[in-house]
Amino acid sequence: MSTQWNDIIVALATPQGIGAIGVVRLSGEGCIALVDGIFPSKQLDKQSANTLHVGLIVDGEIKIDEVVIALFRSPKSYTGEDVVEISCHGSNYIIQQLMEVCIKKGARLANPGEFTMRAFLNGKMDLVQAEAVADLIASGTKAAQETALNQVRGGFSHVLSNLREELISFSALIELELDFSQEDVEFADRTRLKNLLDHLDKTVHALLESFQLGNVIKNGVSVAIIGKPNAGKSTLLNTLLKENRAIVSPIAGTTRDTIEEVLNIDGILFRLIDTAGMRESLDEIESMGVEKSIAKMKSADIVVYLYDANTMQQDELNEVESELKVLSKQYLLVGNKMDDLAELEKKNASCTSNRINISAKNDLNIEALKKELAKSVVQGNIHSEQTIVTNARHFQSLQKIADAIKAIKKGMQENVPGDLLAIDIRQCLYHLGEITGTITNEDQLDYIFSKFCIGK
Amino acid sequence: MSTQWNDIIVALATPQGIGAIGVVRLSGEGCIALVDGIFPSKQLDKQSANTLHVGLIVDGEIKIDEVVIALFRSPKSYTGEDVVEISCHGSNYIIQQLMEVCIKKGARLANPGEFTMRAFLNGKMDLVQAEAVADLIASGTKAAQETALNQVRGGFSHVLSNLREELISFSALIELELDFSQEDVEFADRTRLKNLLDHLDKTVHALLESFQLGNVIKNGVSVAIIGKPNAGKSTLLNTLLKENRAIVSPIAGTTRDTIEEVLNIDGILFRLIDTAGMRESLDEIESMGVEKSIAKMKSADIVVYLYDANTMQQDELNEVESELKVLSKQYLLVGNKMDDLAELEKKNASCTSNRINISAKNDLNIEALKKELAKSVVQGNIHSEQTIVTNARHFQSLQKIADAIKAIKKGMQENVPGDLLAIDIRQCLYHLGEITGTITNEDQLDYIFSKFCIGK
Repeated sequence: MSTQWNDIIVALATPQGIGAIGVVRLSGEGCIALVDGIFPSKQLDKQSANTLHVGLIVDGEIKIDEVVIALFRSPKSYTGEDVVEISCHGSNYIIQQLMEVCIKKGARLANPGEFTMRAFLNGKMDLVQAEAVADLIASGTKAAQETALNQVRGGFSHVLSNLREELISFSALIELELDFSQEDVEFADRTRLKNLLDHLDKTVHALLESFQLGNVIKNGVSVAIIGKPNAGKSTLLNTLLKENRAIVSPIAGTTRDTIEEVLNIDGILFRLIDTAGMRESLDEIESMGVEKSIAKMKSADIVVYLYDANTMQQDELNEVESELKVLSKQYLLVGNKMDDLAELEKKNASCTSNRINISAKNDLNIEALKKELAKSVVQGNIHSEQTIVTNARHFQSLQKIADAIKAIKKGMQENVPGDLLAIDIRQCLYHLGEITGTITNEDQLDYIFSKFCIGK
Repeated sequence: MSTQWNDIIVALATPQGIGAIGVVRLSGEGCIALVDGIFPSKQLDKQSANTLHVGLIVDGEIKIDEVVIALFRSPKSYTGEDVVEISCHGSNYIIQQLMEVCIKKGARLANPGEFTMRAFLNGKMDLVQAEAVADLIASGTKAAQETALNQVRGGFSHVLSNLREELISFSALIELELDFSQEDVEFADRTRLKNLLDHLDKTVHALLESFQLGNVIKNGVSVAIIGKPNAGKSTLLNTLLKENRAIVSPIAGTTRDTIEEVLNIDGILFRLIDTAGMRESLDEIESMGVEKSIAKMKSADIVVYLYDANTMQQDELNEVESELKVLSKQYLLVGNKMDDLAELEKKNASCTSNRINISAKNDLNIEALKKELAKSVVQGNIHSEQTIVTNARHFQSLQKIADAIKAIKKGMQENVPGDLLAIDIRQCLYHLGEITGTITNEDQLDYIFSKFCIGK
């Protein structure tokens, strides 16, 4: 680690901005004594862990704020160190003064993710759990939150850790054989080892396969809505977003910018790409041209081709469909402007797969369209308890584990000597340890935690 | 009150946005039992006050987040009721889920300022203190924070409450005289009453006089920088703001928009009005014309007239000064472009009051200019312990108190009968009580607390 972590760190743990309260968090040996020195109301050093204390924070003669202090003592805290959380009035000025007096008394500003990195280094969580904390904070949908929370609680790590433990015991036995190599003994039961490897292989492949879904859960699915001018793309966008906004409205002030072009369907995030054009004038859309449409299609996970169901010729539609098939994209052909409900229902009854009719203007069949979108990503429901890989770093390590298992199996089939087998097993253990952080290096940790926000 | 306040309220107490943690706050009888029902880890109902508890928040089968719960029990809480604060991971999605499950279990979304209103209604603080909480949150300078904190801690209220208590005892004695009116006795010592009234009068007038300063502290001082094109207004603005930005930088993400045109000098906020034009092209400035300058001057508390000290004729400057005097504005005549330090010092040595020379380009004498600005507002330093009125509502009530005191004194001089005196004293007590909230009405409370943010 480039930073020393036996000092006291301080950071604002709550978002910037005006709110009723702000929380300033300190961690590190001596942080209770530090706060004690600016909190004359009570002797904090003598208070029990997990208690709350009301009083004034001062900087010498200067009164900074009346605060509530939450006291955590090592090892029962988020970081595993002594931790003090100070809830002050939510004024930027007060928060700044509070942090400045903490720094004056010996704390330093925390790096991004440093609280969580300390939690990891102090053994409070493994690396998968630590990484999931960032995912949990960034989670914007039910599926993302459930998956991240499952990982924070160790769901994913436990599976791998248990298999790693078993493999370690085999590794030890095989290394033992090496000491007795002239006697040609086999301490490690080859059948049991093979069973373990099969089990590990199956688990790793299931996790690898879950990554596609995991990626969808974490990053969302990109959707391109394309079609001729006047097909109603802009109306469809507004109809889709209008409903979505209603869902996110209960908390006022949710940032519009990030939600604007995003749909949450059954807990999965759909990102509508390059929708800016749809909001432009008609002329603008006309000028977009075919090339831009193709570029859009290529960068999307799903293509929605919208057309006027009243005027579209069947031949032309079939042609569009074969073009989409050539691109081998997931797609939906959506006939719009079926503004009459009876007619629409009749038409939909005869629809083949990947085809659906709607009226964007009259909000007809929009729910069915959303269901189709969700279905095209996930077959069946997402189970929160399911172990899902969402992290590209984990995916890469899992691929290396799969390779190592393959090598071990091959070696066993070919009856290679124990010392060669041991090398492959060690390789497999290394990559397993890499995921949970049992084996790690400073650069990697710095990289992982640099993606966190300050204060976590 | 239009809202019933025997129910459980819930709100996000921290600002919106992504942060390490968010805090959801509940208050009201039964809120501990409510949270107990979604927090299976521990029996919250059986835990002591002022303690912290880590565990999972669930909605039936659905896991929402791993949180830290802070438990406060009535009457030792912010509102005086049972209060639970839930620190969750700072994701909007999680916060929304958390609030929704609280609402599902019987809480309702708090109105703006409702936590503080309950604190007032439960006698935890008087109205001046409650109002100062909002000021404290909004405070952006040292002086504003100190004044608000002083009021939150009761500084202002104590002064008035004590005087009110004394006046009440006199009032009681005078009302007693009325019962014995035929006997012509005087229970209330007229000399002592007069002394009390003198003391009250002095206090009220000091408070009334402090309002101008209080207003400055709370709302800042508006400054218009005017002058001919090419006088260097834009350069001066940048020089002033550049230094200011450095001061606010320690906390990243402080909103630039609100700071951009604001200066903090010795803890006082200076608002540079209508500076937009200064950032425009030179042509733009030329086109602004004289009328706009006059309008700017009229709306400002202080006018800074900037001129090129190398080319300005003394006659013309005197003319400008007499025009400014006609407007009876505070003003500073600032000679710019004294880019040579030696020459500038020579020139400043012979400066009369209200005149100063600087070089905006070379950052010469800018500190002195800022000192002059501060001096023109406050004679001497602002003392945080000083009792200062910052609230227009309090100012109005104080004016009515002053009128009532005048009436009582006049009545005593003219030896009016006790029953007439009693009416004036009651009027005075009413307005005193109005400030601290001893006497109040629902509409007024609703109005006062509607200015708060939700969650406070």
